[in-house]
Amino acid sequence: MNNFNFHNPTQIIFGRDRLNELVNYIPSKAKVLITYGGGSVEKNGTLQKVRNALSNNYFREFGGIEPNPRFETLMKAVELIKKENIDFLLAVGGGSVMDGTKFISLAAKYNGDPEEILYHSFKPADLKEAMPFGTVVTLPATGSEMNAAAVISYKESKYAVICPLTFPRFSFLDPALTFTLPKTQVANGVIDTFVHVMEQYLTFPVDARFQDRTAEGILQTLVEIGRKTMDNPTDYVLRANLVWNSTMALNGLIGAGVPQDWTTHMIGHELTAFFGIDHAKTLAVILPALLQVRYEQKKEKLIQYAERVWKIENGTDEFKADQAIRKTREFFESLDVKTRLTDYNISSSDFDKIIQGLKEKHLTELSETREVTLEVSRHILENAF
Amino acid sequence: MNNFNFHNPTQIIFGRDRLNELVNYIPSKAKVLITYGGGSVEKNGTLQKVRNALSNNYFREFGGIEPNPRFETLMKAVELIKKENIDFLLAVGGGSVMDGTKFISLAAKYNGDPEEILYHSFKPADLKEAMPFGTVVTLPATGSEMNAAAVISYKESKYAVICPLTFPRFSFLDPALTFTLPKTQVANGVIDTFVHVMEQYLTFPVDARFQDRTAEGILQTLVEIGRKTMDNPTDYVLRANLVWNSTMALNGLIGAGVPQDWTTHMIGHELTAFFGIDHAKTLAVILPALLQVRYEQKKEKLIQYAERVWKIENGTDEFKADQAIRKTREFFESLDVKTRLTDYNISSSDFDKIIQGLKEKHLTELSETREVTLEVSRHILENAF
Repeated sequence: MNNFNFHNPTQIIFGRDRLNELVNYIPSKAKVLITYGGGSVEKNGTLQKVRNALSNNYFREFGGIEPNPRFETLMKAVELIKKENIDFLLAVGGGSVMDGTKFISLAAKYNGDPEEILYHSFKPADLKEAMPFGTVVTLPATGSEMNAAAVISYKESKYAVICPLTFPRFSFLDPALTFTLPKTQVANGVIDTFVHVMEQYLTFPVDARFQDRTAEGILQTLVEIGRKTMDNPTDYVLRANLVWNSTMALNGLIGAGVPQDWTTHMIGHELTAFFGIDHAKTLAVILPALLQVRYEQKKEKLIQYAERVWKIENGTDEFKADQAIRKTREFFESLDVKTRLTDYNISSSDFDKIIQGLKEKHLTELSETREVTLEVSRHILENAF
Repeated sequence: MNNFNFHNPTQIIFGRDRLNELVNYIPSKAKVLITYGGGSVEKNGTLQKVRNALSNNYFREFGGIEPNPRFETLMKAVELIKKENIDFLLAVGGGSVMDGTKFISLAAKYNGDPEEILYHSFKPADLKEAMPFGTVVTLPATGSEMNAAAVISYKESKYAVICPLTFPRFSFLDPALTFTLPKTQVANGVIDTFVHVMEQYLTFPVDARFQDRTAEGILQTLVEIGRKTMDNPTDYVLRANLVWNSTMALNGLIGAGVPQDWTTHMIGHELTAFFGIDHAKTLAVILPALLQVRYEQKKEKLIQYAERVWKIENGTDEFKADQAIRKTREFFESLDVKTRLTDYNISSSDFDKIIQGLKEKHLTELSETREVTLEVSRHILENAF
């Protein structure tokens, strides 16, 4: 097990019909900005419940945060915050709204050019303060409700903004608020969660048994409940398990003290940026291809994954690993998500652009071993047909 | 899954040789009281490392916190704190030192009679403030390093003091600091951790898959590494796994949203209070007896436990459950810990006293179903021969 630090101060309020407790978590004199996305929270009544719960606070609203939230949109919220002296943010939505709100919370307190916040992972920015914010989660997927990471789109790129100042103060997780999600978004959430776990688990062994078994537990549960959750949209218990596993998949817990490989996400981000493919669908395309290309480096964990998650206990090591990759792909397809680049009309003539995108963001030494050069990334794309 | 709140703000600094980082977590102007136990930390050099790391702080020391820390002892530390205007505590030791330090942190800020803090679980006390404190962990067992609970002894009783103000600010977990522990304390730590998990897991099913699988993962790991860790005291990786699983066993994670049954601990506390038996050894005696007595209520989870933790996959439900209980007892015995009351010279003539102890602390409706009356508790004791 590697040395690590773990700190996750977010308060979780989990369960049905608890939005009336919002008053216990938002300072009574706070001037609140409610942030949300395309308006589904208005239609399904969640936004109204939040308004009712905040009846004692001065609040304003900022809607229209798009999937893959854009810098330009978020900066409009910053303007409003300054104009109205807002001092607390409340994100109501899924990963994009929460991620966007994290960026807003930093940008509203940043003295320099806010673009610098985007580049902070490869060019240091002076991130000293963020506005406090909470979340009301309507889509289980990104884990943003209990971590300090955000992915923000600007021009033709996606940028990861990771800053310990942007842990939500609190997150309300009511599984019933996810009942109205379209099937495809549930499938996306299952896959996003699955791949979050894989990026922290499927590397090389360091004998970190809590982390491994917890990761394997989440994967097994997703396999069990993935399709069922899509097909039974108002089954509270299925949704509760999806929501909580999704949160636990990316809150630092299973990634503490182990190598991590975020290659699938990094290449996937380029696919979303250039071709507008849903984030989770890009992951479903890249992960199986990556496991094939990085077979030798990941062999030991692939076998463990085969045995423990897929219960493939007989056969040679090669057979087990191959079967596990095949079953991973089949699982994604069973959620009606396609796993080949051709399914999304991407051809090899698009590769130069994708590789150039990685290069511009200095993503030239990806993976747990830093061996995924641009050449290897291209090889992964070639395997994704 | 039941509704729940989860909040655990403790910062973890995990790994080898990191005590020099203490300066990053203790305010530079803080006047620190280092608390410790019987002196093993002086002998094995840990205390000196801590002193070296604090060379820029004014600090005092308070040793002699005993196993099952006593109110009277802890109040002496409170006196010293007031005399010296101490404003930060640093516990260096195992569960007793950490628990004791939590009580000190409350008592030093309490305006009423500090005895009231002990009784707060059945008679409300006004716990508004606690001194900030951190820990340096030398014994993996109680999970006290990442929770807000303490068990304090007073007269012939043990009291659970649970207060959200007493989460450690930070905890340093260096597995190498546990290398010098006597074998019996390692065994105690393994059993204490195992039973913490069982008290949160072995109840009735509520379809909480993350919690169940994470609990099962910890149990499997303890079975794998328990004896090996005892026999290989300087094996870093084994210790690292014991330490981290032990912390995760009682930090709120696996107990969130599920029924809990703390009967084994409650009866065990009486055995320690009256007969001075090590805490973990009382658990090893009570748990198998309790599982037998509460067989009907726990049947479904017993079968799941048999199948998933002990891989007992054939046979009737009764067979599986019986085998699982038998294997649990054998596991404890394999760590050289006896599991029968007679092994500790306790006879049925002692039962009245034990039952009276439970009664005085209003522990008359124990377990996940509140059905463990004093009569059932007596029945458990009878089964523990």
